[in-house]
Amino acid sequence: MEELNLITNQLEELIEARNFSGIKELLKDMEPMDISLVLQEFPKKIAILFRILPKDLAAEVFVEMDTDFQETLLSSFTDTELKEVLDEIYIDDTVDIIEEMPANVVKRILLISDAESRKAINDILNYPDDSAGSIMTTEYVKLDEDITVEDALKRIRRTGIDKETIYTCYVTNPNRQLLGYVTAKQLLLSDEEMIISEIMDTNIIYVNTHEDKEVVAKEMSKYDLLALPVVDKENRLVGIVTVDDAIDVIEEEATEDIEKMAAMLPSDKPYLATSVFEIWKQRMPWLLLLMITATFTSQIITTFEGKLSAILTAFIPMLMGSGGNAGGQTSVTIIRGLALEEIRLRDIFRIIFKELRVSIFCGGVLGIATFAKLLLIDKLLLGNSEITLTVALVVSLTIVLVIIIAKLVGCILPVLAKRIGLDPAVMASPFITTIVDAISLLVYFGIATAVIL
Amino acid sequence: MEELNLITNQLEELIEARNFSGIKELLKDMEPMDISLVLQEFPKKIAILFRILPKDLAAEVFVEMDTDFQETLLSSFTDTELKEVLDEIYIDDTVDIIEEMPANVVKRILLISDAESRKAINDILNYPDDSAGSIMTTEYVKLDEDITVEDALKRIRRTGIDKETIYTCYVTNPNRQLLGYVTAKQLLLSDEEMIISEIMDTNIIYVNTHEDKEVVAKEMSKYDLLALPVVDKENRLVGIVTVDDAIDVIEEEATEDIEKMAAMLPSDKPYLATSVFEIWKQRMPWLLLLMITATFTSQIITTFEGKLSAILTAFIPMLMGSGGNAGGQTSVTIIRGLALEEIRLRDIFRIIFKELRVSIFCGGVLGIATFAKLLLIDKLLLGNSEITLTVALVVSLTIVLVIIIAKLVGCILPVLAKRIGLDPAVMASPFITTIVDAISLLVYFGIATAVIL
Repeated sequence: MEELNLITNQLEELIEARNFSGIKELLKDMEPMDISLVLQEFPKKIAILFRILPKDLAAEVFVEMDTDFQETLLSSFTDTELKEVLDEIYIDDTVDIIEEMPANVVKRILLISDAESRKAINDILNYPDDSAGSIMTTEYVKLDEDITVEDALKRIRRTGIDKETIYTCYVTNPNRQLLGYVTAKQLLLSDEEMIISEIMDTNIIYVNTHEDKEVVAKEMSKYDLLALPVVDKENRLVGIVTVDDAIDVIEEEATEDIEKMAAMLPSDKPYLATSVFEIWKQRMPWLLLLMITATFTSQIITTFEGKLSAILTAFIPMLMGSGGNAGGQTSVTIIRGLALEEIRLRDIFRIIFKELRVSIFCGGVLGIATFAKLLLIDKLLLGNSEITLTVALVVSLTIVLVIIIAKLVGCILPVLAKRIGLDPAVMASPFITTIVDAISLLVYFGIATAVIL
Repeated sequence: MEELNLITNQLEELIEARNFSGIKELLKDMEPMDISLVLQEFPKKIAILFRILPKDLAAEVFVEMDTDFQETLLSSFTDTELKEVLDEIYIDDTVDIIEEMPANVVKRILLISDAESRKAINDILNYPDDSAGSIMTTEYVKLDEDITVEDALKRIRRTGIDKETIYTCYVTNPNRQLLGYVTAKQLLLSDEEMIISEIMDTNIIYVNTHEDKEVVAKEMSKYDLLALPVVDKENRLVGIVTVDDAIDVIEEEATEDIEKMAAMLPSDKPYLATSVFEIWKQRMPWLLLLMITATFTSQIITTFEGKLSAILTAFIPMLMGSGGNAGGQTSVTIIRGLALEEIRLRDIFRIIFKELRVSIFCGGVLGIATFAKLLLIDKLLLGNSEITLTVALVVSLTIVLVIIIAKLVGCILPVLAKRIGLDPAVMASPFITTIVDAISLLVYFGIATAVIL
C-alpha cells in the first residue's frame, strides 16, 4: 500500500515533467492490478497514460480497472485500439466488462469482435445472472481420448497461449461430451507414450450451465479444484470456471449474506460506486417492515401501562437490547453454519439442546449481574427507593427468560427458513430482534403482573 | 448431496452383508472428500472401513475427515499404518492435523516421521497462529536460474510427484533467496533451449513468514495467484501458500467478521464441534458489556419519567429498534467495504455525505409513515385519545432525526476504529445499537420537553 503511494507520487512528478519514457519505465514491471490502481489516481490523464503501456500489459490493466474508467477509456479508443485490447483479454473478462457498459458501447464491442468471439460473448450473456454459464470462460484445453501424452503436450504448446488455464485439460468425445480430465501435472509426470484415456480421471465433478454460481464456488472450495467444467443440457462441455472467479464469488456471497443479515437487500456493486437512490432502495423495505412490526411493542406497552409500577418502564430498553443481542448471536452463528454446510437441517435437535444449555449459562450470569447491580449500586449506593427486592427479582428473572427465549428463537427460525426454502440470512439479528422484543415485553409484564397479584 | 445419501445406504447394506470387496468397489472411484463424509456416517466401523481403502486414497480421505474421527483412526493405527498415511500427505496437512491432536498423539506422529519431515513440521508449528508460516507448505518446486527449460521440466518430472503444486516454480540463488518465478505454462510454451533467468518473472509478490494469513489470502485474491511464496527474515524462500488454503482463509475470515459483527468473540471451530462452555465464553463478554452500557438508557428514562406524557413511553421500542436497524445497515456496509478494501480511510467525507443523503430519504419515508399511521390508524380508526397531533409530530420528527443520527454514527465509528487500529467489525449492529439507543432517547425526550414547554 505504502509502496503504491510512493509510485503514485513518482508518477505525478513524471507526468508534470512530461517524461513519457520515464513513465513507461516506472510501470512496465508492475502488476496489472497495481498499475490500474495507480493510473486511476489520475482520472483526467488516464487515456494518455494508458497509451504509454505496452499492448499486452495494457489489456491486463484494462481488465482490472473500475467500470467508470473502463467506460472513459473505451470511448477514447479508436477501433484499432479497441480491437487490440479485446484480442488480448479472455472472453469471460470481456463479458464482465460488457455487462456493466451502456448499450452503445456494448454494440461497438460486439461489432468489432470477430464472429467466433461474438458468438461466445452472446452465448455467455444469455445465461441467467448468477449462473455457472454467466461466469465461465470458453477458452480451455480440450483433448481427444485416443492421443498420446506427447501429442497432448504438443497440442497444449500450440494452443495453450490463448487458454485461461492449461493446468486442467478436458477429454471429450466427438460430440463434445465430457469423458474425463487430465492435469498438466499428470501429463508432465506420465510416460510420453501413454494414451490419454489410460491416464485420465473419469470421476469428474462438473456443473450445468444453469447451476447457481454459489454452488460452483462451494464445489470448487470443497474439492480444492483449480477449474470446474460446465456442461449444457446435452452434457456437452461448453466452458470452465477458474478458481480466481470462484474466489470472487465466495467474497461476493459472503458480502450478500452479511447485507441480508443486516436487513438490507443485497447489492453486487461496491459501496462507493452505488448511487444514493440505489442504497436507499436497498435499505428502505426492511426498515419500513421492521418499523411496522415494532409497533406491536407499542400496543403491548399501551395495554399494560398504568397497571404496573412506573420504574419497570426504565428497564425495557436494557431487556430488549440484551434479548436482541443474544438472539442475534445465535441466529448469525446458525446462518453462517448453514451457509458453510457445517450445519444440516437434521441437526436441529442437537442445536436446540446446545443453545438451551448455552442460554441458561448466559442468562444466569446476566440475571445474577442485574440482581446484584440493582440492589447494590442502584438501591444501596445511589439510594433509588423505587428499586425494591420485588422489582430486582422481576427484572433479573425476566432477563434470564428473555435470553433463553431469544437464543431458542435465534436457532429455530433460520433452520425453519431453510427448511421451507427461504434464505436463512434474512432471519438474522434485525428480524430476530423484532420478534424477541415483543416476546420480552410479554414475559416482563406477565411476570410483573403475576408478582404484583 | 442426494447421491451421497444413496451411497451411504448402499454402504450400510454392504457392511451388514460383510461384503468387503463390494465396499472397496463402491468407494474406489469417489472423491476423497465424499468418501470421508460417507465413512463418518459409520463412526463405530470407521477403522475397519478405512482399512479397505487403497493406501494412497486412504491418506487423502484421512486429511478430509473431522478431527474427532482422525483422532479415533490415529489411535487405531499400528506404527506401520501411521507411517504409510503420513508419507502420503503434504506437510501442511500434517501440521493442520497435529494442531488439533492431544499431546500424546502429536508425540507419536513426530517420533514416527523422518528427520527431515520432523524438522519441517516443527518449523511450521513454531510460527505464530494465523501467520503465513503457519499455513504454508514446504513442498514446492525450486529451480536454479542458470538451467534450461528442458532441464527444468526434467527436474519437475523427477521431483514433482511430492510437490503440492508444480504450476508455479520458484527461482532461487544458492543462498535460497528468491529471484523470480516461472509458471508451468511458461515452461511448456517456451523453447526448451531457453535459460530460466531469461523467461522468469522477477516482479514477484511474496510475504514474510510472520505476515497475517488474512493478508496472504487478500494478496492471492487480488493478484489471482495460484501460489504465494513465503520468505524468512533473511529473504530466503521457506515455503508457499497454495490457493486452496487461501480460499479456506477467506471463508474463515468472513465467518470471523460475521461473528464479531454479531457481538461474539471469533471461533475457528465449526459450531457443532464447539463445546457449550466454549460457545458461552465466546458470547458472554459482549452480552455483559452491552447490557451494562444499556443501563444508561434506564438512567435516561428514569430521569425524564413523570415529566412527560405516559403515551410517549409506548414508542420507545419502535424508535430504538428503527435506529438500531438503520445504524446497523450502515455500519455493516462500511465494515465490509473496509474489509474488502473497497473503502479507504480517506473516503470518510464522501461516505458521510452519502449516508447523510440516504438517511434523509430513509428517515423522511419512515417519518411520514409514522405520522400517517398514528393519526389515521391509531387516532381515527382505533380512537386512541392519547394520540394528539403534538404526540404524532414529536414521534415522527424523532424518527427522522434518529435515522439520520444512527446512519452517521454507523458510518463514522467503523472508520474511526480502523483509523486507531481497532478491528472495525466490532463496531457493528450491537455496539452501534447501544449507542444509538441512548442518543435516540435523549433526542426523543429533548424534543418532547421542548414541545411541551
